[in-house]
Order: sequence, then C-alpha cells, then structure tokens
Amino acid sequence: MPGKRHLFAPGPTPVPPEVLAAGAQPVIHHRGPDFRELMRRCLGRLQQVCRTENDVLLFTASGSGAFESAIVNLLSPGERVLVVCAGEFGQRWAALAATYGTDVKELRYAWGETPRAEDLRAALADTGAEVVVLVHSETSTGVVADVEPLARVAREAGALTVVDAVSSLGAVPLETDGWGLDVVVAGSQKALMTPPGLSLVTVSAGAWERAARSTTPRFYFDWAKHRASLEIGTTPFTPAVSLVAALDTALGMVLEEGLENTFARHAALGRACREGAKAMGLELFSPDEERSAVVTAILTPDGIDARELVLALRDRFGITVAGGHGELGERMFRIGHIGYYDVFDITTALAAVEILLAEQGAEIERGAAAARALDAYGETVRV
Amino acid sequence: MPGKRHLFAPGPTPVPPEVLAAGAQPVIHHRGPDFRELMRRCLGRLQQVCRTENDVLLFTASGSGAFESAIVNLLSPGERVLVVCAGEFGQRWAALAATYGTDVKELRYAWGETPRAEDLRAALADTGAEVVVLVHSETSTGVVADVEPLARVAREAGALTVVDAVSSLGAVPLETDGWGLDVVVAGSQKALMTPPGLSLVTVSAGAWERAARSTTPRFYFDWAKHRASLEIGTTPFTPAVSLVAALDTALGMVLEEGLENTFARHAALGRACREGAKAMGLELFSPDEERSAVVTAILTPDGIDARELVLALRDRFGITVAGGHGELGERMFRIGHIGYYDVFDITTALAAVEILLAEQGAEIERGAAAARALDAYGETVRV
Repeated sequence: MPGKRHLFAPGPTPVPPEVLAAGAQPVIHHRGPDFRELMRRCLGRLQQVCRTENDVLLFTASGSGAFESAIVNLLSPGERVLVVCAGEFGQRWAALAATYGTDVKELRYAWGETPRAEDLRAALADTGAEVVVLVHSETSTGVVADVEPLARVAREAGALTVVDAVSSLGAVPLETDGWGLDVVVAGSQKALMTPPGLSLVTVSAGAWERAARSTTPRFYFDWAKHRASLEIGTTPFTPAVSLVAALDTALGMVLEEGLENTFARHAALGRACREGAKAMGLELFSPDEERSAVVTAILTPDGIDARELVLALRDRFGITVAGGHGELGERMFRIGHIGYYDVFDITTALAAVEILLAEQGAEIERGAAAARALDAYGETVRV
Repeated sequence: MPGKRHLFAPGPTPVPPEVLAAGAQPVIHHRGPDFRELMRRCLGRLQQVCRTENDVLLFTASGSGAFESAIVNLLSPGERVLVVCAGEFGQRWAALAATYGTDVKELRYAWGETPRAEDLRAALADTGAEVVVLVHSETSTGVVADVEPLARVAREAGALTVVDAVSSLGAVPLETDGWGLDVVVAGSQKALMTPPGLSLVTVSAGAWERAARSTTPRFYFDWAKHRASLEIGTTPFTPAVSLVAALDTALGMVLEEGLENTFARHAALGRACREGAKAMGLELFSPDEERSAVVTAILTPDGIDARELVLALRDRFGITVAGGHGELGERMFRIGHIGYYDVFDITTALAAVEILLAEQGAEIERGAAAARALDAYGETVRV
C-alpha cells in the first residue's frame, strides 16, 4: 500500500470525506446570494464554536496571516505589547509584533512550561503593556495554557487579550465571551477539520476601538475593510470560496457532534496517547493533564534520534507525525490528535512507533501501548 | 433546474471537474516529500505559463494579497511609484501603494482607454518613478493593455515594472522574461482554472535587489521568508495544500492544451462574444480588438438598467455575469470568458441576455447573436 497515508501531524489534520466533497463543489461567485447565504451561515457557526457574539472576520490566509491582522490592527508603532512565550508560536508572535515596530516585551518561559497568572500580573505591572498575546495551545510543546485566569489578570490590568487558538479552537474549551477574550485567532486546518487556507479572528468592541486608532498601515488584512464587506455578506478580496464551503460543512459536523462531546473526545484522545506512550516505557514532554488534548510531545529513549524515527514513520509506513523544534529535535516527536481523529489513529501511531523503536533495540514494552491507549480512552469516552 | 449555475463572471471562473477532484484528495502535510514534489512541479509549471526563469512565489491569499507583497517588498515609504490607472484595478493598486506610505504618482486615463507607451515615457520623465505598476487585463473595462512597449519604456527609464496579470495570465500572451517584466502578479481563480485562494508573484533579479533594500515592514508577505522556505520545497506558513494540488492539475491541463492554443481559444471566445453582442444590436464598451480576450464589457440599450439585467440573469437563469463599477453600473455588464470556457458558454450568455432584453422591449435582433458568435468563433478556431 505505498499510497496510503496517515496524517497524525498537529496540523494540517485529516479532513472528513464530506468536507472534501463540499470543497469540490462547483465554484460560486463571491458576490452573489449563494455565497452570501454560505458566508452568513459559516460565520454564525464560527461564532457558536468560538462561543462569542463578537464579529468574526474570515481571511484567505494561513493562521499566521490572521495573527498578523491582529498585530497591525491593534497596535501602532511604539505601543507596548506583552507576548507570553513558552514555545515556537509565542516566539513567532513576538517576532511578528517586533517586525511592525511595536515595543515588544516578553514573559518568557522555558519551552514546555505552563504560563502562570501571577507571573503575568507582575509582568503587566512592570511593563504597562496595553495588549497581551497568549498562546492557548502551544503546538510546539503540547502545553495548553489555562487561558481563563491569564485573561482575567490582563483585563484587571486594563490590557486587551489576543489569543492564539489556532490549534485549540474546537479541540479544548475556549470561551471567547465568557473569558473576556478580545481577539481570538484560529485557522481552518486543525480541529475545524478543513484543509488549510482560511483563518479567522474574533473582534470585541474594545478591539474595534483600538483598531480605529491604529496607525500601522494595512490593506489585505485591514479589519475595517472586512467589516464593511461583511455588511453585504462578502469579503473585500476574492475569498477561497471552496474552502469556505468546506469549512461550513465541517463546522456543521462539529456542532452536530456537540462542542462538549468534541472536547471530551479530544481529552480522551490525549489521555489515550499519553497513557499508551507511558505504557510502552516512553517519557512525555507534554504535561500529563486533562488540558493536554491537542498534541502529545514524547521523548525518544536515550540513544534514539527522534528525527530518524519521524523519517522512518513517514518513509516506511506513510505516517506523518511532527518532529521537535531546534535542540529538542534530537529527542522529541509529536503526535497530533486533532479534529477528524479517533482512538484507532492513536493506536496506529503508537504501534508504528513501537515497532520502529523495538527494531532500534530500545528497551520498550511490546504490545502494551495500543491496549493501554484503548483502555484509557474507554475509561473516559465509550469506545 | 433551480440548482444549475453558469459562472460567466470574470473571476472566479468555472473549474474543471478534474481540478475539483484534485483539490478533494486527502490533505497532505506541507513539510513532507509528497508536498515537496507537488510544490516543485507546480512552481515549474507556473514558470512555464509565465514564460520565465525568475523565481515564482506562491501565497495563500487572494490576488490582492500577492499585489500587496509586491508593494511592501519593492518600495520603502517615500519612494516614488507610478501607477498606470485606467480602471478599478489600477486605482486599487494606487490606493494600496499609498496605504504603505509610498509617493504614488498616477498616469490616469478615463476608464476604458488603452494606456500608451508615449504617455508612460513622458510620465516617467516627469516623475522619475523607480517602479511602474501596469495592469495587463483591466477586468473592470475589458481592456488588455499592450504591455510589451510599456515595459520597454519603463526599462529604458530605469524603472522596475510590476504587472497585474491576475485576469490575463494564461488567457492572453504574456512574456515575463521576453518583455523584461520584473514582477508579475497573478491569481489561481481566472485562466488558471483553479478555485480562488492562491496567488503568485514572479521576482526578477532586479526585484530581489530592491526587496533587499525595502524598509517597509512585512511578515506574512515577506518574499525573503518565502524564498528561504522554497529551498526546502515548502512555504513559511501552512499553505492551502488542497488548492496547490488543484492548481498543479489545472496547470497540467493548460500546458497540455498548449499555451498558444489557449491564447487562440481565448481570442476566439472574445471575438465570438463581441460579434454576437454586436449582431444583437448592442454597443461594446471594451475595445473590439484581438487582445480583448478576457472579459467583454457591453452597454445595455437606452432605458435598460444593466443592474436589473444582471440580477435577472442570476435570479431567473442561474447565470452570473458581472455588472459595471460606479457610474458605469447603470449601463454596463461584463461577460467573462476565461479559463474553462467554450463557445457554447458564450452562446448561452448571449441567448439569456437577448431574451431578457427582448422582454424589456429593447430593439434587438432576435436569434442573431448565438449564430454570429458561433460563426465568428469558427472563423478563428475550429469549433
């Protein structure tokens, strides 16, 4: 079966056949009633998934494009922004904000640490930052931050919160309005079960006020242009209409499953992955807790190069998992369990890792991982 | 047949079923060998279609996004750019360049006029602009500019040329290297027969030199980031992999037809549309010449509101054509004939226009348009 592929990366993620089929419908014009109806339904469903009544703006762009929109619309050059960094994506947003001439302060943790509200309170008091950037699910480490208390601290300090929910939206609980998140950034290609190419922001009233004042030049990612076009049910620039149709179908599936059920499934998948990896004898890099429901970062046994493991999974079995970034690359690999994913995807990933490690002579327990993963899953969600 | 749709807009355009199917394949990871092979083949095919050996950079964005990339990479604030404006898109690029603080000069024509090389030479001498922006196919008017002499004049003046080929690439001849075009901007959703969501730029050595000096902040659209990622066969941000697969398939079809044959087909389609409209008794807004092969702008008879015609085509027959912009909206409608399009799409569009105009009591000739369109097509290309 040389052609069969298993996509277990933390994004892009597998897309259901119904969603692929929706994206393969004939292209419709983006300034007609067919698209208007599609767009309004899709944005309404995104509001439900984001649990917000704020505006949702949809961009034809990767998640990084939507994140850029948040920076350029909220911040003028010289304005102070505090970025909470505990991995690759926190660092990326700090670099992005610096590119646009903002005064970037970082609350920096070692990769894999979980940001703490008391640290953020102190950092806000120190810096007086007007905007705080939080990463909900730090895909590079598997850590899902406890956003609610972090956002509360930011609000108490009078700062706006921007939350990177690219890999978390639809996988773990996120309450945009309930937690007072001003801007939530997400992409189509993770738990929203859609091919990559669309991204979104939610924009609170406070965020709109800041956007009206921002002097940073912007055109393609200008929120005001998007809001004006939304009033007539479209976008200022020709959108990826096929992906909007796909996303709408996928959101319908998410809402049909029920958000709480989706969150429970992801939590159970994360637990299954961690328990299975531990049963095999592997050490986790991700924290072993309920919120770690998006991606599991695992360390290889001593003497086994994770980069070679990742390549062997791909070349021998057609299985894509992710490696680790930078220095972590020698020891870390990451299994995504996001979106259109069931427990047998976990057992497949672990079984493949197991046989490769065994071949390398690693001291691991054969056969334990899949069984333990299934049991752990069943303890949480009925298999 | 309430569900049947005919997409005769000048973009997005109809997409062949093979291309829709290619975009509906399972999503692949953007940092693996499957994508690397796809991306390299796709970019190679784009070079063939653009007739260039320059780098091609692919963005997950609308055409306007790729255009923004040209402005922010080529121009620092205060630098002078000359935009040749003879319609909606020329004006858009002038507004975009002004947004980023460049010193924008316009060589402005009435909508529908064809830019002249001698005017450009004079404007360059007056302004000393370092960069010239040309629109190849001005979709708002149907005018296709004669880019070769314009680009020659720019080169003689030592200015870089940026060409908006969004609706022209693959429809009418464009010689990136032969005409010395430094940057060509295009999108997936016109003659490249792919759903919207991808756009591209070609970048000459001279354009790379300017990009290295530009101080305009950029992140998502930063060319250097894209070039660095291309060296490992990928993009800096998760691309719309499904659309890349679709585009690659569509480009294969274009190259199989043969670029010269594709150009001849578009020229014949434009001729068929113009001849049919004239046979019916309608007046053309687009020039009636060989290059007018992308979109035909037509005026309604006195007393017939083109906006109502466009709505009736859509609501009664499921036919999407485009209206006119601004003041032209009362009299102008536009039939696109781009990409996956044959002469019977022209006869369908004209027949539907004819019956609606007849119902309105317009003095038009019944039955003449489709017959004349077919004859005119057959005089150029074998039906």
